[in-house]
Formats: sequence, C-alpha cells, structure tokens
Amino acid sequence: MSILESIRSSADIKKLDKAQLKTLCGELRAYEIECISRTGGHLASNLGTVELTLAIHRVYDSSKDRIIFDVGHQCYTHKIVTGRFEAFPTLRQYGGISGFPKPNECGDDAFIAGHASNSVSVALGMARARTLLGEDYDVLALLGDGALTGGLAYEGLANAAASKEPMVIILNDNNMSISENVGGMARLLQTLRIKPGYINFKKWFRSVSRHTRWVYDFVHRSKEWLKARILPTNVFDEMGLHYLGPVDGHDLEQLENAIRLAKDMEKPVLLHVLTKKGKGCAYAEAHPDKYHGVGCYDPESGELAPVGVSFSDKVGEYLCRFAQNDARIAVITAAMAGGTGTECFAAQYPNRFFDTGIAEGNAVAMAAGMAKQGLVPVFAVYSSFLQRSYDMLIHDVSLLGLHVILCVDRAGLVGSDGETHHGVFDISYLGSVPGMTVFCPASFQELHDMLDFALHSVAGPVAVRYPRGGEGRYTDSSLSAETVLRSGDDVTIVCYGTMVNEALDAADRLEQAGVSAEVVKIAVAFPNSFDTVLASARRTGRLIVAEEVCRAGCVGSAILIRAAEKGCALSQVRLLNLGGGIVPHGTVAQLRRDCGIDAASIAHTAEELCGRETVKE
Amino acid sequence: MSILESIRSSADIKKLDKAQLKTLCGELRAYEIECISRTGGHLASNLGTVELTLAIHRVYDSSKDRIIFDVGHQCYTHKIVTGRFEAFPTLRQYGGISGFPKPNECGDDAFIAGHASNSVSVALGMARARTLLGEDYDVLALLGDGALTGGLAYEGLANAAASKEPMVIILNDNNMSISENVGGMARLLQTLRIKPGYINFKKWFRSVSRHTRWVYDFVHRSKEWLKARILPTNVFDEMGLHYLGPVDGHDLEQLENAIRLAKDMEKPVLLHVLTKKGKGCAYAEAHPDKYHGVGCYDPESGELAPVGVSFSDKVGEYLCRFAQNDARIAVITAAMAGGTGTECFAAQYPNRFFDTGIAEGNAVAMAAGMAKQGLVPVFAVYSSFLQRSYDMLIHDVSLLGLHVILCVDRAGLVGSDGETHHGVFDISYLGSVPGMTVFCPASFQELHDMLDFALHSVAGPVAVRYPRGGEGRYTDSSLSAETVLRSGDDVTIVCYGTMVNEALDAADRLEQAGVSAEVVKIAVAFPNSFDTVLASARRTGRLIVAEEVCRAGCVGSAILIRAAEKGCALSQVRLLNLGGGIVPHGTVAQLRRDCGIDAASIAHTAEELCGRETVKE
Repeated sequence: MSILESIRSSADIKKLDKAQLKTLCGELRAYEIECISRTGGHLASNLGTVELTLAIHRVYDSSKDRIIFDVGHQCYTHKIVTGRFEAFPTLRQYGGISGFPKPNECGDDAFIAGHASNSVSVALGMARARTLLGEDYDVLALLGDGALTGGLAYEGLANAAASKEPMVIILNDNNMSISENVGGMARLLQTLRIKPGYINFKKWFRSVSRHTRWVYDFVHRSKEWLKARILPTNVFDEMGLHYLGPVDGHDLEQLENAIRLAKDMEKPVLLHVLTKKGKGCAYAEAHPDKYHGVGCYDPESGELAPVGVSFSDKVGEYLCRFAQNDARIAVITAAMAGGTGTECFAAQYPNRFFDTGIAEGNAVAMAAGMAKQGLVPVFAVYSSFLQRSYDMLIHDVSLLGLHVILCVDRAGLVGSDGETHHGVFDISYLGSVPGMTVFCPASFQELHDMLDFALHSVAGPVAVRYPRGGEGRYTDSSLSAETVLRSGDDVTIVCYGTMVNEALDAADRLEQAGVSAEVVKIAVAFPNSFDTVLASARRTGRLIVAEEVCRAGCVGSAILIRAAEKGCALSQVRLLNLGGGIVPHGTVAQLRRDCGIDAASIAHTAEELCGRETVKE
Repeated sequence: MSILESIRSSADIKKLDKAQLKTLCGELRAYEIECISRTGGHLASNLGTVELTLAIHRVYDSSKDRIIFDVGHQCYTHKIVTGRFEAFPTLRQYGGISGFPKPNECGDDAFIAGHASNSVSVALGMARARTLLGEDYDVLALLGDGALTGGLAYEGLANAAASKEPMVIILNDNNMSISENVGGMARLLQTLRIKPGYINFKKWFRSVSRHTRWVYDFVHRSKEWLKARILPTNVFDEMGLHYLGPVDGHDLEQLENAIRLAKDMEKPVLLHVLTKKGKGCAYAEAHPDKYHGVGCYDPESGELAPVGVSFSDKVGEYLCRFAQNDARIAVITAAMAGGTGTECFAAQYPNRFFDTGIAEGNAVAMAAGMAKQGLVPVFAVYSSFLQRSYDMLIHDVSLLGLHVILCVDRAGLVGSDGETHHGVFDISYLGSVPGMTVFCPASFQELHDMLDFALHSVAGPVAVRYPRGGEGRYTDSSLSAETVLRSGDDVTIVCYGTMVNEALDAADRLEQAGVSAEVVKIAVAFPNSFDTVLASARRTGRLIVAEEVCRAGCVGSAILIRAAEKGCALSQVRLLNLGGGIVPHGTVAQLRRDCGIDAASIAHTAEELCGRETVKE
C-alpha cells in the first residue's frame, strides 16, 4: 500500500517522518497528474502547492482549525489527504467531488471558494468569532499573488492587521520575479527569522540591532516614511501585519517551521511563500499558464486533447477585426486574457489592451472614464465575476448612460466548475442596471453581428452575453429583438442564446408527438417590447419561457410584466429556469436535464400544457 | 460687488492676486455656511477644501481638464466658482442643483460622484482615453483619506501607478493624526520638493544624496525591502506612483506650487494634502463629525434644527436591546456608524462592533466567516452602498446559506442626496440572491419585530430594509407575509414599507370617490407565496402593486411570476414603480409624486382601472 492510501486526515500526516513525507509528495503529484488528465482541472497550481499543503496539515488540524483557500482551485492535495483519496477520480464530474473547497462536501473544507480575494476577510470573521465565543482553534488564509491584486484582499488585510486577531495569512507567491526584488539584508533576516523557537520579531530585531542602533533607527524611520508615502492611509499606518519570509515553498521542513512560527506568534502574520507552478511535472513547469486550467491530456507527454472553437475564441477574433477600423476600441480584462479569448487582441493591439488584475470593480470604473472621454471600451469578463462590478455598473456607467461594452463570457451553466462559476445571475443583475441593453447571441454569426451593433449602433451601456463552449445546431443570425424560428399553433416556446438549440430540439420532439410548437428566439433580453412573443402566446394560448438563469429577474418575468402592462392575460404559462440559481457541477447537458430546461423537459412541459399524456422516451 | 460674484470659471480664478484670493476664501466660506444652513448638506468637508479647490482651479481649467471628485460631497466650492453661484441656494432642493458633481448639470463636473473610492479608476480611464486619442488635457482625481480605505481605491492606485499615465491624485487628508507619523527627513524632503521649478524628484534626490551615497542606498534598499514586506504583490512592486507632500491644505501658495509641480511631472503622482474639516467655522471645526452632513442649522451658533426619530435610530436601539440577551450578535458598519444609528451599539458593545472602513465587500465576506463559526453578524449599511457587496452576498453568504443579517438602511427614495444615493435597486438584487429573506417593515414596531425574527427565527441570509426618516400613519405591526390592512371590493392595492401610508391614503381618497379598495401589506418581499394578494386580485379583478423601487425584479414581477405558476390570469394589473430607477433629488414626497407612486397617483390609477373619470383634485 502506498503512503498516500493511508492518509485520511491532518493527524495522519503529522505521524510521517521526513522520508515518508518526501515519498508522499511524489505519490501525490503522480496521482494528481494521472487523475486530472482524465477529469480536467487545475493542474499547475496544485502541483505547486503539494509541500505547502502538507506543511499546513503538519501544523494545523483541518477538522477543527479553519483553513480558508482563496479562489480554491489549489485545494486538490487538501482534498486527497482529508478523506477524498478514493473520490478524487470523480473530481468535477457529475455527482463527484467539486474542484473547489465545499463545506457541504467535507467539514475539512472550512469555507467555499471560487471567486478571488475573499479569504482574508472570511478568515478574519472566523478569527473574530473564535475570540468572541471563547473557542480554541486556529485560522489560516491561503491566498495567491494573483488574489492580492483584488481590492477585497487589501480591505481584508487592512482590517486583519488592525484587528490584532491571531491568524496566519499565507501568501502563495508563484511569480518568482518577486524574489528578485528582495535585497541582501532581507535574505539575512529571513534566515534568522525562521529559526525554530524564534517568536517575537520585534524583540529580536531590537536585540540584534542594539549595538547598531542607527540601523534600527534608520530602518524604523524609513519604514514610517515609506508607509506614509506608498499608501498614507490611517488603516495602513496602523497596520499591524507581521511579515515573515520569503520561504522556499518546496522545502517541507523550512515551511513547517515557518508556519509553526507564524501560528505561535498569536497575532496577524503574513507568511510569504515562494512556489513554482507545475512543480515536478516537466511540461507543466515549462508552461504553467497552459497547464493552469486544462481539459483532458496525455499524462506522459502533456499533450492536450483538442477542444472545439468557442464563443470566447470568436470574441477575440471579432474584436481584433473591429479594432482594425476603429481606433477608439480598447479591450479590458481582469486577469483573464486567456479565458476570455482576448490574448490575440493583446498581441495585436498592446496599446489598447488593459489587464487590471483581479479587479473587476476598477475595470468597470476605468471603462466608464474611458467612455466618458470618447473611447469605446470593451470589458471581457466572466458572468459570475462581473457580479463584483454591480455597483460600478449602476453608479459609474449607467447614471451617465455611458457607452461601455461588456462581453459577458461563461453566461449560463459552465459545467464542471460548478456553483461558484455558473453565470446564472447576469440576466437579473444586468436587467436592473438602468438603460442597459443585453444581447444574447445564439450562434457565432450572431455574436459577430451583435458585437458589431453593440460597438457602433447602441448608445449607453450594452452587454453581449454568451456561454462557455461553442454553438449548436442554430448557426444563423438575426438581430431582430424577436424572431420566429419555427411556426406552430399549439404552444409558444421562447428562448435565447444557445438554449435555442434545446427549444428547436423540443419542437422536433413535439412534432413527432403531434404538437405544433412555435419557437421564438429573443435576441435582446432588455429592452424588448416582447410584442411578437405576446402575439404568439395569445394565438397558441400557451407560453413556455426556457432560460438558463435564475428565476428572479428572468426574461420570463419581464415578459409577464409587459403582458400585464398591455392588459394581456396569460393563464397557460410555464417559466422554465434554474429557480434560485444554485446548481452543482457536471456537464451542461446533465445539469440542464436535472434543472428541467433541456429539450426533453421543454417538450414534456409543452405536452402537459396541451393536456396530453407525456410521450415516454 | 464681491469677488465671489465675479467668478464664473477657472480662468477667472487665475486672474486674482494673492490678497483677492484670500478675500475670496472668506467670501466662499461665509456663503457656504449661510446657504447650507438653509438647504442642509455637507458643511465641514466643504469648509475644509476651499483653498484646495481654488488652488486646483489656479492650475487646471475645469472646462477642459478633467477633475474627478471622489464621493463628491466636497464639490460645493467647485460648483460655486464654475457658474453656479446664483443657483447655489437651490442646492439639493427639488429642481435645484445637485449636492454631488453631475456632468448633466455642468460640463465642469467631469464625472458623477456619490459612492466612494472610484475616482482613481475613472481618472485613469480618462487619462488613457486622452493618450490613446492623442488629446491634450490634464486629469486629476481628488480623494479623501476615507475613500482610501476602499479596495476599489487600491485597485485604481495600483493600476494608475503601473500605467505611467500622466495624472495627479490628490489625497485630501483631513485626519491630522497622519501627519504625526511623518518623520523629520520626510519634512525636509517636503520642503525641498515643493520648491517652484523642481520637476524630477529622482534626479534631484540622486543629486543631493550624491555626497552621502549611503543615505541613498539605504533608503532605496529599505524601500524595496519594505515594499516587499508590507504588500509584496507584483502590482505594488511595480508601482510607480510618485508621492509628494504632505502639503498644508490651507496655504494657497504652497498648494498651488505643489499641484503645478505634480502636474508638470507628467507621470502618476500622488499629492498628499492636509486639510482641516470645518476650517474657518468655529462650531464645525470643533465638531467636524457633527457638521459633516447636516440638515438646517443656525449659521451663527451652529445649532441644528431638531429632527424626528428615524428607523436608523430605532435599529441602533433595538440591536442594543437584543444584544443584551444574545452574546452571539455582532454589528458591522462600513464607516457609517453615525448614519446607520449604530453608534450606541459601538459605545455599549465595543468588542462586538466592527467598523471596516468604506469596505462593504470585506464587511459581507467577514460577516460570512463570522456566521460560519457561530456568531450572528448584523451588517448595517445603506441600500445603495450594499450594491458593492452583491458578489459577496451570492458567493460568500448565499451558497452556504449562512445566517447573515443585513440592516438595509436608506431603502427607497432618500430625498435630497439624489440619484447616487436612492436605495431603489435592493429589492431587485437581494431578490436574486438565492435563499435571501427580505423583510420590509412599515413601522418602528414592525422593524423591532422583524429584526427579532430575523435574528432568532430565520435560517440563512436575511435582509431587513427600511427607509431614511421615520414612520407615518401606520404604526401597527404584523409579521404575516401578507396582511389585509383594509378590505375592499373594487381594486387590490399591494404595498410594503412606508409605501403602506400612501396606499392607505389612496384608499381614503378612493372611498370618497366611491371606489372600495383593498389594501394588502407585504411584510416579506421574498420568499412569499402571495396567496392573499392573488386571492384578493381574483376577487376584485384589479391589481395595483405600488413600490418605491426600480421595475426590474420588483415585488410586482414576483407576484406575476407566482400568478403564472398558479395559472391565475390577471388582466387588470398596474405595476407602479420607479421604472429604470434613476430619480433626481428633491423631497421624498415630491419625488413620489413625480414618479407616480404617491397616494394621488395610486388613487388615480385605481380609478382608471375601475373605468371611472378621475376625480380632479
């Protein structure tokens, strides 16, 4: 039996000796490379944090101490060593374990993760709860250097520092360039700091600098001077974060010592750890970005399985094309150039491409400033991450009616990333932004035409929302707000985006069952008169609106409002959607089926409305 | 004629000599103290920035240069000197000028303001637009030390620094304590830095430190060391913000020199200015917090006009009462202890009160951590500012179904603060948060009872939303999801919160006109079966839902969804609400009337539905 198979908890890891730990690291890497090659997932970041995760479990007990992951895609080793070794091959699969920490899956996952930069705030809340309730456990936040670009992390750090709450924040820094900037004195301090038994840095620093008082004075004064200069806020000025590091993130012994030291300091400590993404896997080390989030691949060679053309790819291609003839177009990403397909734009128009880091709020406010002064800014962003910009969309963009274009990627169900990543609230929150036009392309050609229209023919804020993945059977294009894709007499089926394919499939099924369905495609969710929909529904007497979004604020509800305003009474209505909007992971097809919005469900509902016995499949 | 009356633009200010400028400062202060005493508004912060605003106009031309205010309540002097001297007595009044910068009011207001911490991001967007479009104007952001506690400001600063775009960020620091921390060397540098004609700090610093090379080396090394330690991010590491200051914010000559220097540096510069809130007005200087945002007062003595008891006052009182018997209750504010009425809680339970600064995202994520570990966190926050936490409500609170209580203050129309402050989107965005319960108290007693219920009897996230100001004719309490307040046969009027008073008044009017109206009060916006509403509407045949929120996602739309689900066809429906949700400033009564949701409008709509001639008032 391998060591790996014997590990079930933090306690098991604590029992291992140095040699066993080293073996375990190798076993973990081999297992992760093998399993992820079949499930897809986050490879490079997990390979980079094997030692760090084990060191954390050597010091903490995840069954009672609270380990808060940030973003969370680096949690695989943690999952494997806390009772999910056997389940790991089901990672991100329908019914299997999640690719992110999930308390409902296991108590050792202290909190949910999926969006960036929240870990310090969450950990601070937990530390405060522990203290106020007089309980006895430790709290640790583990965040990457990317997460540190988010303003939320800054808010959390500032608050944590001021709190004086005992807690450790580990900065997992996998950008090696940062270590270049650490001067000679710093390295000296580092060596001394992580000496076992060393607790109070300030006391120690005072003692070693006693004979060289001027060094202490100067450093202290420079520190105050610099703090006042870099960010002269009250919060930072009073910041009491104790920094330790940097520590080699692949030296288990050094790591364990440093983490233990940080924990024993009983105050807010930031421990800076340097790790290498993809560590121990040649192809992942060589191309950490390529192997950050992957589909299936050959575990030996790293060769990735081919993937189809996606809406994201097309957005990048089209934006490059439009930018050729319009110097006002500028593209913004929040650390997602790869995911949003805008890398090609960055390469072709580096002066007009802006990566804000994980700072969606800043991206939207900046876009507002650009638009006010005559640029045509395009912010390409995942639907669920754009939630961070809700206030800026209203306050900075909408109140002035500014022409900011949002390319809302990953709209609808995203599949295996699951509940934190599904883009199922955007119709609701974008629909509440005054003056926002929301386009819902159902094909690549529609994406092209709608983007063109959004860039050149819409005044005010405009969003183009499209799903993860590619197009389906519908490949035409119609910019008309409402288009009858297929005529019918018995029931009206309304849909938009790639749900159009489900509606057309449903109509085929219904035809076989003798039900004549009319399919109306919505191109513009808001604003829309829904005149064609209402006319059709009045004629057929039955209306189904099938959507891949949450119920609140859905297009179906907008149609009902419009019907009420027009005095159009509809009694035979079914709104098919995702209800509250919390949907687990799985393939989109599986999830659509479970949520009752796939072709079979739509057809089934239509037959019910028509008072027929459902055709059993 | 006073000097003040002759000033219409930046150009006019540039013509004045030193003595005239000094006179102008006095005239401005006297005029502001006098006018604000009648209109209410932000007194102390405007008195503190008279010299700073004039100095900015000495250097910049607000008709073409872009001056971006942060929060914006310190814009009064700017408004008065850019053509709004005569209009200033209409400040914040219905039909008058706004209390915040507003480009639609005047082109010299470069951008909208009202929410905090966005100015640097907006200014960066403008600077980039200027550069990309090859235009010739300067960009300046003016933010306070409070705004610097928001993560958005950090994101903006990090991005601005990395951009190398010429722009000036003035930090208006009115917390004098920060100057205490500035060491002797810093003061020396400051004196030298603001020498007229000095442009390149680095060149200069190298030249003065040539003979004392070790000083330069040490400072440089300490700087790198400290940067890596305080916030070891790539962004900060590469940060190129050039710091200047601190400068005395009431010394016009020094200010003008410093601003001119900063502008001429042609890079991102942060100029640190120290101002005194309330400057030049004894009572405002003595109590800057009390005179931050005020109603009417006696301009001589500063005696404030009495105000009635508000929902905010009651929230503070009730929370203190509940906390007495429940040690798990903790209260959080985002720099709004005064506004949210929670100062008394802070005084009584300092260990259980947490002020995060202007960091609503952190407040919610922290509350989630608290709730996960057994505390009962209550976040008291203005409705329009909670928009900043939309993502955290979904991701951190809702996905785990955590019991976080939101006291959503300033829900609905807020009156004279206008469009940036109206809390008219919360029903929409809270309604889309999975599992969120939303209570809408219509009286103080209901606030008490709902808060009690929210704290002790609801699982999962719960919001209690209440308006600015106090209660009206309705002072009873009913926690029933739907309550028939008044029975009638001809029309059903549905409402919640203090709109209940408009509905009751409407029913009185209708009675006189011979129309029998049934008034149904909603206590819980979500979740709600709306069975009583639908039964009533079926009986009367007519339904009016009157709400002080935007149309998208309103309770009326939820009722229509429910009706559709139940197969209940309603043809005579009117949803009265704020439409898109952009509403200007004025009294709440004036705005309700203009938006068609006051008692008269409700009655008028009811009569129309009933097919009657409207009774002319």
